[in-house]
Amino acid sequence: MSLSHSVIERLRSILGSDHVLTAREDLISYSFDGTAALQQLPGVVVLARSTADVVAVLKLATETKTPVVTRGSGTGLSGGSLPSADCIVLCLVKLDRILEVDAANLTLMTESGVTTIQIAEAAAAAGLFYPPDPGSMKISTIGGNVAENSGGLRGLKYGITRNYVMGLEVVLPDGEVLWTGNKCVKDVAGYSLRDLFIGSEGTLGVITRVLLKLLPKPAAKKTLVATYDQMDRAAQTVSDIIAAKIIPCTLEFLDRTTVRCVEDFAKVGLPVDCEAVLLMETDGHPAAVAEEASLMEALARRNGAIEVRVARDEAEANRLAAARRSAFSALARVAPTTILEDATVPRSELARMIRFVEGIARKYSLRIGTFGHMGDGNLHPTFLTDERNKEEMARVHHAFQEIFDEAIRLGGTITGEHGIGVAKKDFLPKFAGDASMRVMRELRRALDPQGILNPGKMFD
Amino acid sequence: MSLSHSVIERLRSILGSDHVLTAREDLISYSFDGTAALQQLPGVVVLARSTADVVAVLKLATETKTPVVTRGSGTGLSGGSLPSADCIVLCLVKLDRILEVDAANLTLMTESGVTTIQIAEAAAAAGLFYPPDPGSMKISTIGGNVAENSGGLRGLKYGITRNYVMGLEVVLPDGEVLWTGNKCVKDVAGYSLRDLFIGSEGTLGVITRVLLKLLPKPAAKKTLVATYDQMDRAAQTVSDIIAAKIIPCTLEFLDRTTVRCVEDFAKVGLPVDCEAVLLMETDGHPAAVAEEASLMEALARRNGAIEVRVARDEAEANRLAAARRSAFSALARVAPTTILEDATVPRSELARMIRFVEGIARKYSLRIGTFGHMGDGNLHPTFLTDERNKEEMARVHHAFQEIFDEAIRLGGTITGEHGIGVAKKDFLPKFAGDASMRVMRELRRALDPQGILNPGKMFD
Repeated sequence: MSLSHSVIERLRSILGSDHVLTAREDLISYSFDGTAALQQLPGVVVLARSTADVVAVLKLATETKTPVVTRGSGTGLSGGSLPSADCIVLCLVKLDRILEVDAANLTLMTESGVTTIQIAEAAAAAGLFYPPDPGSMKISTIGGNVAENSGGLRGLKYGITRNYVMGLEVVLPDGEVLWTGNKCVKDVAGYSLRDLFIGSEGTLGVITRVLLKLLPKPAAKKTLVATYDQMDRAAQTVSDIIAAKIIPCTLEFLDRTTVRCVEDFAKVGLPVDCEAVLLMETDGHPAAVAEEASLMEALARRNGAIEVRVARDEAEANRLAAARRSAFSALARVAPTTILEDATVPRSELARMIRFVEGIARKYSLRIGTFGHMGDGNLHPTFLTDERNKEEMARVHHAFQEIFDEAIRLGGTITGEHGIGVAKKDFLPKFAGDASMRVMRELRRALDPQGILNPGKMFD
Repeated sequence: MSLSHSVIERLRSILGSDHVLTAREDLISYSFDGTAALQQLPGVVVLARSTADVVAVLKLATETKTPVVTRGSGTGLSGGSLPSADCIVLCLVKLDRILEVDAANLTLMTESGVTTIQIAEAAAAAGLFYPPDPGSMKISTIGGNVAENSGGLRGLKYGITRNYVMGLEVVLPDGEVLWTGNKCVKDVAGYSLRDLFIGSEGTLGVITRVLLKLLPKPAAKKTLVATYDQMDRAAQTVSDIIAAKIIPCTLEFLDRTTVRCVEDFAKVGLPVDCEAVLLMETDGHPAAVAEEASLMEALARRNGAIEVRVARDEAEANRLAAARRSAFSALARVAPTTILEDATVPRSELARMIRFVEGIARKYSLRIGTFGHMGDGNLHPTFLTDERNKEEMARVHHAFQEIFDEAIRLGGTITGEHGIGVAKKDFLPKFAGDASMRVMRELRRALDPQGILNPGKMFD
């Protein structure tokens, strides 16, 4: 281990020995995140309990030019919190207090290590609603959500994490603490530093506190499941729903492979002899919900759905939503290595993209289950593979390349909600173009001149 | 004029003589924006007709280190497009084409010199809705809206310009063209350069194209006007509406001075013998609108409103909304100089802030009419003064200082929607703090190392 003994000793004196992990078995636990086939032992793991802890760690890191990789629960899917060799892993899960729910201003202030589900529950307890619902929300931390600008199932209607961040406390690489934002609905004083830190994947500063916007809880919700013998009919249903001026809160798609794995796993009675399933949710005023649900049902039938099932009650609706949420886990059961992608295209190009992915699976003889957020064009083609099979992994890599190229060609993006991290570094230059790459590098240099935060990620 | 003759000659050969203005009477027309008491003759005014024109002008400016001040219609209220001495004013109003309305993806692509009202009308013609509605929307350009991150009356429910920008074409100071964003609802590939340029007030690049997000047009709308003999009762009505989990699309407040000026100007039958008027609008599904309107009416009455009037039809609703939109013009008629401020506080602090402004008017013997967006805490205390009266202007300056200090003390901001520009430069450091000021300066240096874009603005 080349991280110096003196750095580790100083970390122990700052944080206390209990919060500095160096045993090999501890380092192994922090050597990966949710991304398949990526692993690297860090030099040391430290558990911060306060902003002051983070300040002290970053001051030491800056002084000693030691790389720092920040992480929460490590559920990321692009290797954004993968350690670099001999780095300090700065783990924030002990920044775990929700500090305030302000019902008059519809805001919630929290430390960054609190889990997304805890935020959602604290909002719900006040009769309010925190919409962003990334797949990992039961374990992911809000700090990680902000750093990755996480999406979720409700993106089409409610937007993503960025749309709910009103303020941030950020510790800069040199240990200076910056607060940006406030409880005002409107604030245009200076550059939006808040928006620069959101989605910067731990490369510009360490997020320690987050001020979130909440909404009133929708009064009603209806859940429908439609089954199709052709994927195009599901896609046409989605187009027709949008053309009818309905913005449902959820429009999820599962292909045959995914449906079978999910039903096998969750046993909620999904029909397995179909090519595509559409899970639709509408929420809001009861009258609007009733009208939209019946219109969505009619549009599904008009497009030749084999069956349209309306959830009888909240319990059934929750079971269906939970089944969809289990898609990744369900697919992960059937192969040693599951690589979840998030190529995203404008909604109008979605059917074309799904067909393209099917073609790629045939071309490279790969098993790909595709599910995702059909309403917002955010697909999750999921490769069921085995990282020990080098020859197959090479085919997987070629398949990725073609899928990303096609997403760019269709006016889409190489990542809708997982971020660049390590996994998509190679694909960013083509997507972003020279001018954007140059500006991003300059911004990084301006904020982290030594390049100690999350080195080797994104474009570094 | 110290802007060299050779620069002007080269501008003529790039753009054609018709698009390069140097006559004194032309320069005067471009020597101010909508901000009172600020004027500066530029060196030259150029009218760009394409991105290529902008590229050529910026290359020349970079080569010759000539300052460039970009402007659209010049409706800004913080001096953001005030020329600096011997600068090139780069006027973009001839970038005036809407390029595409894409109903399937709910987007609109436009050049940056198109007016906000044209955007709104093009969206409406497709049955869609562009929500941001700054007061100046009939003449302001979308490029200016993006550069200033403009607000409007619908901020509480629908957000501001930032929330509707999906992509930008920006020319960097050295003439390189950068595109950031796409039609995807979700995209997390790299830093959000788009969000950095939004609200950067022309200091980081020149915006030439904008990709906007549209919404389905709300099916129904209802407008109510409530009159009060005490401002606190209006404020309590607003709090009660939010506590009832209603998010109206508009919650506008006018004080006694403003109501009288507006009625005198617009003659829509507003009651002039009251202390406060609340203009409320709810939109969406007809059933939700009917329910919310009747609940808002009940809450207004419960809080002792003297009168609550529900607009009978769309024509009356439009007259009332137009009357509110005329507030600035109406106030401007009664004094030689009208200074419109936009101190903003968290909604819960609004009544306190309004009382504070009233106290300041008494303390400094000033006439202040206050109106604004009560739902989102964005106030417009408007000083009715005379810039030729130096002694009074000194009192105005002290009054500003106290109002901004109080806004900061209450957790608010020094500008909710007008920007920093020249007018609020002195107040930014106290609001933003040392760390944010340092980061903003570093970002500016990274993108515009020569400091030629809009020099002397914001923190420069």
